Amino acid sequence: MSDIDAPVARRRGGRAFAMAARAAEIKPRLSTLRYAIRPVEAVNDEQLERIHSASLSILREVGIEFRDETALRQWREAGADVSGQRVHLEADMVMGLIAKAPRKFEMTSRDPTQRFEISLDTMTFGAMQGAPNIRDLQGVRRASTIEDLRNMNRLTQMLPGLHIAGGFTCEPTDVVVPWRHLHINHSSLVETNMPFFGLTTGRERAEDSIAMARIVYGKAFMDQNAVMAGHVSGNSPLVWDATMLEGLRAFAEAHQVVLLSPFVLGAANTPPDIPATIAQLNAEALAALAYTQLAAPGAPMIYGQYSVSVSMRSGAPMSGMPEVTLINVVIGQLARRYGLPWRTTASQSSAKTFDAQSGYESAIAYMSGATANANLMMHAGGWDEAGLVCCMAKFVADAEQNLLIAKYAQGISFDYFDEALEAVRRIGPGGHYLGDSFTLKRFKDAFVSPEMLDYLSYEQWRVQGSKDMAERCRAKAQVILDTYEQPPMDAAIREELDAFVSYRQEQISPNLA
Amino acid sequence: MSDIDAPVARRRGGRAFAMAARAAEIKPRLSTLRYAIRPVEAVNDEQLERIHSASLSILREVGIEFRDETALRQWREAGADVSGQRVHLEADMVMGLIAKAPRKFEMTSRDPTQRFEISLDTMTFGAMQGAPNIRDLQGVRRASTIEDLRNMNRLTQMLPGLHIAGGFTCEPTDVVVPWRHLHINHSSLVETNMPFFGLTTGRERAEDSIAMARIVYGKAFMDQNAVMAGHVSGNSPLVWDATMLEGLRAFAEAHQVVLLSPFVLGAANTPPDIPATIAQLNAEALAALAYTQLAAPGAPMIYGQYSVSVSMRSGAPMSGMPEVTLINVVIGQLARRYGLPWRTTASQSSAKTFDAQSGYESAIAYMSGATANANLMMHAGGWDEAGLVCCMAKFVADAEQNLLIAKYAQGISFDYFDEALEAVRRIGPGGHYLGDSFTLKRFKDAFVSPEMLDYLSYEQWRVQGSKDMAERCRAKAQVILDTYEQPPMDAAIREELDAFVSYRQEQISPNLA
Repeated sequence: MSDIDAPVARRRGGRAFAMAARAAEIKPRLSTLRYAIRPVEAVNDEQLERIHSASLSILREVGIEFRDETALRQWREAGADVSGQRVHLEADMVMGLIAKAPRKFEMTSRDPTQRFEISLDTMTFGAMQGAPNIRDLQGVRRASTIEDLRNMNRLTQMLPGLHIAGGFTCEPTDVVVPWRHLHINHSSLVETNMPFFGLTTGRERAEDSIAMARIVYGKAFMDQNAVMAGHVSGNSPLVWDATMLEGLRAFAEAHQVVLLSPFVLGAANTPPDIPATIAQLNAEALAALAYTQLAAPGAPMIYGQYSVSVSMRSGAPMSGMPEVTLINVVIGQLARRYGLPWRTTASQSSAKTFDAQSGYESAIAYMSGATANANLMMHAGGWDEAGLVCCMAKFVADAEQNLLIAKYAQGISFDYFDEALEAVRRIGPGGHYLGDSFTLKRFKDAFVSPEMLDYLSYEQWRVQGSKDMAERCRAKAQVILDTYEQPPMDAAIREELDAFVSYRQEQISPNLA
Repeated sequence: MSDIDAPVARRRGGRAFAMAARAAEIKPRLSTLRYAIRPVEAVNDEQLERIHSASLSILREVGIEFRDETALRQWREAGADVSGQRVHLEADMVMGLIAKAPRKFEMTSRDPTQRFEISLDTMTFGAMQGAPNIRDLQGVRRASTIEDLRNMNRLTQMLPGLHIAGGFTCEPTDVVVPWRHLHINHSSLVETNMPFFGLTTGRERAEDSIAMARIVYGKAFMDQNAVMAGHVSGNSPLVWDATMLEGLRAFAEAHQVVLLSPFVLGAANTPPDIPATIAQLNAEALAALAYTQLAAPGAPMIYGQYSVSVSMRSGAPMSGMPEVTLINVVIGQLARRYGLPWRTTASQSSAKTFDAQSGYESAIAYMSGATANANLMMHAGGWDEAGLVCCMAKFVADAEQNLLIAKYAQGISFDYFDEALEAVRRIGPGGHYLGDSFTLKRFKDAFVSPEMLDYLSYEQWRVQGSKDMAERCRAKAQVILDTYEQPPMDAAIREELDAFVSYRQEQISPNLA
């Protein structure tokens, strides 16, 4: 279906490629990445204040719905104007609550090297979440299973470009829904030793997620350390529902990270206007961020948002659009005003297959986040088809893109500048640097050298089988899975974790056994 | 070779798609695009001055070679320290000459709507240049011909996302080298009515390019208006050769735009160090920019650079790398310091086929340029395989990406902010905006709606033939070529142009006829 480049006769493709891939060095996993580029700005200070004021006016005058009795009671007790489910919030209360949030915090795990800071200065990568389908290592798209999820977690564990496992990177659709969250958490904890996303859809699932993490980490450790995050989505316009708020409270009270994401489909649940869309989503975010501090003062939290615009031809969400890129820029400006770390969607694509569209859209989203100094790059791995598919090949490609965009975000070092200028003087006009002593000293570290991007000549590329990026990444994923080793876990802990799953399955719906 | 998605039975693909494409509105061509985003910065003022000073030290202490007798004489007459071909330049002389350049200028053409400003505030798109191969509408890669070049110019003329025709978008390898420039210019002038790149490789070719443009535009008009540009590449490190300098002088003396591009292969012809690479390329650029003003004071010119890093595995150039993205950021900072518009390479890719790699690399380069506020986005259409191939499908995709990145660069309008906030109040919590009066008023203009990016559901996409982006873009290119109309040209002018080609062919090498 793609370009026409029949492999040439003396094909030596697959095996040589796989061997080369196996031989590649294992890179250390990303740690704290600190921005050293000054971000793009799309509005001036006066315009930023207009948006901020509009958000506060919306919260005061229109109000926002908290469809949850506990939250409504808490708002009432705090002195907010509550009528029915509608909460009208004064600016002072909102900003006062937000001021209680930590400006930076760490996430950690049982891998002692996996400790990193999340703050307005740092960049963090989380794997994708929520795909009901997988595009597998044969290139086939189908409903995903628990074994697919385990494989995604194995890839997450092995690839150096991710900080946080997605948890529900793809849905284990072969596990019954009431038991699904148990198996998702089990895989996060067993297949990886990384910080991970637990389940937030309702109190019971959230509490199970926390209970399972406590089996592995212990409550005392988790009271002092964030090892997991809960992703809480809003219902735009201006609604937070009980299911999500229950999850929010469970995570915040357990001292784990909460990520609060209004869900913007521009022109569908916000107006077709960029600054007004931002004002609305900012109102939604501020309300939930303030509520988090009301429910659990000092809880680590991230200003979230998921934004796409909607095609006026088909109603479908559109990834990689300039409006969303601009929204990211301004959300970054607002988050810095509030002193809160914020998230973007790093690698979203609407493509149905891992083709050029997928590459364009994903890279626009990466650069959009990095140039706006986003602190959590969510869904940074595998996301195609507006999130309806997790593409295993793309997951491998994105994990490498994470390393490249991290290098960019960390800016320019002047550590070797004077020494390098000496080389310029030494080489002079018309020379070359390949054999120079400075080149020999620095070439390994100075410039990155990706593995999934192909730099062969056309002729070499044909000899190696005319493989496009999807094929190369599938081959790499297979090598990784073949060499995967489960991170160590104390046998007694593993037993307790397995027993918890069995016990809770029985408790939740014994008739499904 | 790619993902597996066999078309479903009730296929209605090709024809319906082509009809839809035909029915799409013809958009007006891009005019002056003004930046309204504040660019990324990667170095602070003190670091920028260190780089600037290092460049001036290189020019003063190491010197730079001008391998051209005329240039050496001119430098000597201006008081520079010349020994052999080595010219040592003092800072005052360099900066004094650069100050003579216009900070902004216009390009125009015989299409009266095609007049646009090039300055530090604006964004301009030029088609790709120099590919010896084409990937054609059958997806086949082969040496390009004059008919391919004509087709590329037809696409350039019809697609709204380009300001400047590439001239030699692909090489007409079926035309003998001594005659090639004549046929390239002929096609630029006949197949398009846009500003275009002429040939600069030596005085004779440059003068032929200018003579041909003067047949169409008249000398008097061109003395007042820039209708063409000449692209002059440096030989890094620190060499400008006679061939290019002759071309430079011909264009600058004819009041046409010159683009001066040091050619950086990081770690090969510059040190493996980002700030030192910038210092060297900036020295090279400053010397040629200053020389342009020495040769033709007031000539419109653009600070150029072509930068890639080199793979330490294979020696191949690598597109879309973070080092190059950072180099762009700093070149933008330097260009603004000097008050000169500058160029980037908007859409470079090393991919051998129009796959996900091509998309990632191209989009990184687009965003790299836009977020650094690049003023000329060169090669913004078709560039794959590190420039060795012009991919017709990618040309169509890139021309659309140009429109998207232009929308981003132009930032956020507050014109409808208050009206849109009224809609937020009107809709309130839990509503939706699809039928709202403000949505109906604004949806067409508020959010872009690309044509080459697919937003169908997976099921719809399969029904339409499971086409990847390359296939969709090839189909679109065919529709454009089928509906192409040559822009009008006075019959006497056309006759004179044809006669010039015949006359010069005969003059250059009569034995080839």
